[in-house]
Amino acid sequence: MAVKSAIEVLKIDAPKIAGYLEQWIRDQLKERGYTKLAVGVSGGVDSAVVAALAAGAVGSENVTGVVLPYDNVDPESIQDAESMIRKLRISRRFIDIAPVVDPYFKTNPTDDRVRKGNKMARERMSVLYDISREATALVIGTSNRSEICMGYGTLYGDLACAFNPIGNLYKTQVRQLAEYLGVERQIIDKIPTAGLWPGQTDEGELGITYRELDILLHFMMDEKYSNQKLKEMGYQESIINMVKERIAKNIFKGRLPAIAPIPK
Amino acid sequence: MAVKSAIEVLKIDAPKIAGYLEQWIRDQLKERGYTKLAVGVSGGVDSAVVAALAAGAVGSENVTGVVLPYDNVDPESIQDAESMIRKLRISRRFIDIAPVVDPYFKTNPTDDRVRKGNKMARERMSVLYDISREATALVIGTSNRSEICMGYGTLYGDLACAFNPIGNLYKTQVRQLAEYLGVERQIIDKIPTAGLWPGQTDEGELGITYRELDILLHFMMDEKYSNQKLKEMGYQESIINMVKERIAKNIFKGRLPAIAPIPK
Repeated sequence: MAVKSAIEVLKIDAPKIAGYLEQWIRDQLKERGYTKLAVGVSGGVDSAVVAALAAGAVGSENVTGVVLPYDNVDPESIQDAESMIRKLRISRRFIDIAPVVDPYFKTNPTDDRVRKGNKMARERMSVLYDISREATALVIGTSNRSEICMGYGTLYGDLACAFNPIGNLYKTQVRQLAEYLGVERQIIDKIPTAGLWPGQTDEGELGITYRELDILLHFMMDEKYSNQKLKEMGYQESIINMVKERIAKNIFKGRLPAIAPIPK
Repeated sequence: MAVKSAIEVLKIDAPKIAGYLEQWIRDQLKERGYTKLAVGVSGGVDSAVVAALAAGAVGSENVTGVVLPYDNVDPESIQDAESMIRKLRISRRFIDIAPVVDPYFKTNPTDDRVRKGNKMARERMSVLYDISREATALVIGTSNRSEICMGYGTLYGDLACAFNPIGNLYKTQVRQLAEYLGVERQIIDKIPTAGLWPGQTDEGELGITYRELDILLHFMMDEKYSNQKLKEMGYQESIINMVKERIAKNIFKGRLPAIAPIPK
């Protein structure tokens, strides 16, 4: 099967999946004894979809969308986040993390942009959890399966949540849900970035589009294709190996900390 | 069996367990491809024991002890932490979290001391993880089993780590390890506190000592005693119920976030 025709395998029945996920969200809340949700809204398609599912699941009045920019470095994302919150008519909180992150790096300077990005992601988590407690809400997660596999997520940062409705959907599938849920075109078509530093784009780093990646991930993980079969689809060996290595390297983020068993 | 004579069941072979845990730590590091450790040192017995085990496992030169006070609210704990670090001759980092935590609560004021405590615990995690990356080290956890059961730990805060050598040891067992490892008397005998606010003590809140709690937890969880049998040991029904409720209420902290399965 050629890569180009393989995109069909990632097609989802968006209305059915959206309804199913809204019920799943209600079930998760009920199990935990909560009725409200808090979601970090970044201006990207993943958090837009999760905010829409949350509002669909429990009603706009029970969802708080939290915008957590770093200063004004990405005004377009702030606008898209605000516009999504207005559209859904959910509650809005806006907290700039710069006044909290800057004092730390002032006394602990570094040129390592991953350290800066991780610190920001963890600060966002910390604020989002604080607001969720204030609102008696649970934090709903927004990482998709493609990101999780590639390691585009900070442990105890944006990966932290009570539960995540889209963690088993590939990026291209989240986009299909977004279209069905009426997310603005501009947000759906936005170039994906982990937002760790200005100019970072996932696809630029990976050397492959999400469309190509998602098909590769599907046949690699869900269909257990051999490297040979993946190459026959048109994927370069270097890309296949890069993806496998990233999966292996980041698998710890989806596991609990090991606790030493104690011998009798 | 009466509570007083039951303490025997919690006796551990400290030299054997210490050696075993040091090997376990080396195995965990090897599995993950690291050689160094970072540990938050609070001045309490748990982090003192973990720091000592870490130094024993990989050598003082490969361990960084990080002191993360909030301003100078607890000078005695800072002194005990510094003294433990000196004794072990591990590397030392000292970062006051007040300049980072204060700006947040200045713009988002609250009287909820749990919110303040959680924010501080998550800030400590964030700094500890940042320092661990700088040092190419893994974060080693310091929560004991009694604390974990009672919920004395902040999710994505002090509970966050790569692995935890003492999470299956009760508080009274950690104290036995501490004596064997030569931790100062003052640290071993310190009144346990989650440190969430000044004057908070675990035992004051629980209405039971750790000694009594640990025996109760052992017979409740490890020996599966009925409530009737626990009452015959001398435990009040209200205490038994309180402990069971706390365990049930906090069990989510030891679980991964749920991710929605996607139907075909």
